Amino acid sequence: MQSPIITLTTDFGPDSPYVAQMKGVIYSINPDVRIVDVTHGVAPQDIRQGAWVWRDVMHAFPSDTIHIGVVDPGVGSDRHILCCQFDSGIFIGPDNGLISYVAAERTLRKAVSITNRRFMRPQVSHTFHGRDIMAPAAARLSLGTPMDDLGQPRAKLVKLLLDAPMIDEGKITGTIQFVDSFGNLLTNIPKSAVDEMPLDARVVTQVRDHRIEGLASCYAGRPAGEPLLLVGSNGMLEIAISGGNAAKQLGIGTGEVVEVLWDA
Amino acid sequence: MQSPIITLTTDFGPDSPYVAQMKGVIYSINPDVRIVDVTHGVAPQDIRQGAWVWRDVMHAFPSDTIHIGVVDPGVGSDRHILCCQFDSGIFIGPDNGLISYVAAERTLRKAVSITNRRFMRPQVSHTFHGRDIMAPAAARLSLGTPMDDLGQPRAKLVKLLLDAPMIDEGKITGTIQFVDSFGNLLTNIPKSAVDEMPLDARVVTQVRDHRIEGLASCYAGRPAGEPLLLVGSNGMLEIAISGGNAAKQLGIGTGEVVEVLWDA
Amino acid sequence: MQSPIITLTTDFGPDSPYVAQMKGVIYSINPDVRIVDVTHGVAPQDIRQGAWVWRDVMHAFPSDTIHIGVVDPGVGSDRHILCCQFDSGIFIGPDNGLISYVAAERTLRKAVSITNRRFMRPQVSHTFHGRDIMAPAAARLSLGTPMDDLGQPRAKLVKLLLDAPMIDEGKITGTIQFVDSFGNLLTNIPKSAVDEMPLDARVVTQVRDHRIEGLASCYAGRPAGEPLLLVGSNGMLEIAISGGNAAKQLGIGTGEVVEVLWDA
Repeated sequence: MQSPIITLTTDFGPDSPYVAQMKGVIYSINPDVRIVDVTHGVAPQDIRQGAWVWRDVMHAFPSDTIHIGVVDPGVGSDRHILCCQFDSGIFIGPDNGLISYVAAERTLRKAVSITNRRFMRPQVSHTFHGRDIMAPAAARLSLGTPMDDLGQPRAKLVKLLLDAPMIDEGKITGTIQFVDSFGNLLTNIPKSAVDEMPLDARVVTQVRDHRIEGLASCYAGRPAGEPLLLVGSNGMLEIAISGGNAAKQLGIGTGEVVEVLWDA
Repeated sequence: MQSPIITLTTDFGPDSPYVAQMKGVIYSINPDVRIVDVTHGVAPQDIRQGAWVWRDVMHAFPSDTIHIGVVDPGVGSDRHILCCQFDSGIFIGPDNGLISYVAAERTLRKAVSITNRRFMRPQVSHTFHGRDIMAPAAARLSLGTPMDDLGQPRAKLVKLLLDAPMIDEGKITGTIQFVDSFGNLLTNIPKSAVDEMPLDARVVTQVRDHRIEGLASCYAGRPAGEPLLLVGSNGMLEIAISGGNAAKQLGIGTGEVVEVLWDA
Repeated sequence: MQSPIITLTTDFGPDSPYVAQMKGVIYSINPDVRIVDVTHGVAPQDIRQGAWVWRDVMHAFPSDTIHIGVVDPGVGSDRHILCCQFDSGIFIGPDNGLISYVAAERTLRKAVSITNRRFMRPQVSHTFHGRDIMAPAAARLSLGTPMDDLGQPRAKLVKLLLDAPMIDEGKITGTIQFVDSFGNLLTNIPKSAVDEMPLDARVVTQVRDHRIEGLASCYAGRPAGEPLLLVGSNGMLEIAISGGNAAKQLGIGTGEVVEVLWDA
């Protein structure tokens, strides 16, 4: 029988030896596991961005996947290290809000604080719990160790205040949550909001002083250089520039307010 | 029996969660497959560069390898998605010219347009066919699904106009096709062109206003800082600077004309 | 039985197709091997940095791991290619000092110069021995080929002059060896040096014109923005800025002298 997949999401940078150290620890415990790098390009210590990435990728993985997230400015302090089982997978990371987006969408089945030293590396550093605590815990789980053995149940998780989109009649107000590597601006407005609009509605999007007419079906759905609004691959509304980089060309980043207006 | 390898070549950037999503989809279908990242650093939407990379790496992989390429500015438009079997491997990507360099060198055995929804993800987005169509198709092929089941035969492929080197008596004219991470300038002039020169020929290379004497055998074959011409690891002539970065120091990039002259 | 792991440490850049070529070669010989990218972000031709990385990661891998290192400005010249067995793993790379940090800490059991063409690719380029010589050698070893078959025994290895920390009474003088992706400044002063200080010692660290008081236990162990000294995850003293980037904010890189003073 196949071991589950272990994924890695960190802010270690694209080519950090720290990632390899975690893999060495994992393979030392479970040589048969498959490890997938989600990204090591989370902005240093940007918990919100890491949280978004976890939400974004969980859909593509089997629900027994073990996701490790290391965006951990408080490493070595008294913050807990969580192992949370959701219906979409198991998530291991610091209790600092990294689980926020996943928790907002999915059902939590169980959470434990990893405290059992028996499943940690013999020497636990104060600066790299990803390697010394999270990696061995994930590897043990992938071999069948029950989650309960890792530590104490944990009732309450630290969560970030998430921007929820506000839906009025004829208007949705959201915010940019993530900028991808093409400069596409991903919002927190779900596809379902579009479904509420009348089919023949005239849609106008306003972001800072930019005004975008209509709803495109794909990136090539407008002449090159023109900004467009479309439903992105993660099911959220997204602002892009056909053949261009919306973040750079519009000068817009995360946190910016987006208004989508329509009339019938 | 081992599954074939699946490789990924994209313009998603070095740390994009989009890559991980494709891997999640592939592993969900074939947990035993080996996935190799070729590069995710193709310049955004630079089809020519992606095409070169495919040609460059196919030599190193077994001929049953399935290469996925996602450099796809037309995603969601009516462009086709191809699955092409060459003697050097199977190539899956948008029908936008990405196959050009491979097709110029290798024998096409079969090409189909991937249209069978049965082998796609249940929900196909308009913006990420790499994840929703190409990844599942590759995973199915790796499990033994016959290529013909994926869709309709396709007789004609979109191809880029490639610069072919021109060989005169005593002179070869080529162009820079690719700049590698060391700043080495890879041309489209094959090693075989060198074999035509007399053994005692005096070789001079001209690129913009730079003049390079002779043919070196390795990067360290000239004093540090000096430009040199040599046969690169892909069997093509290449301009480099010993211990330096030719692209930066000579100010030269892709498309630049290179003349190699010799007399006996 | 599981094959050993093969790791890759190179200066090829984060997204180089050269890495994939090495993997294609390795998998062609041993389809069952697990390959781990340590880093491809060693600064171009920076042998010292590559040597440090090898030392840094070996601890996390099983001792039968085969580490390939390609930081190889002399490729194609008459420098040897080594395969060295230490108690911490097998290391394959050019004989240019890449093994220096490992050799300073670990016991060498055997070293051979890889010369047997039977274990190389049929065509050996002058510019890419990582692919044509090192990758196939590692793959063969992972299948059980005895190291002695690869070539001739080698008695002497090229080694870099390493900065050793100097320990006086009340003062240790070391140097910055590596800057990680967070901008943390890793020194060559081992944790054991701290153990020599009296428990109630007042510790002051001097680096250029910056003065750091005390020894922190973790990155969050000081108010944000403040520089701190701590024992890093590799067991060496490290200078960091809480919530910041020490390299950028202090303007300090590798080679810089660090003085740690204490009195009881």
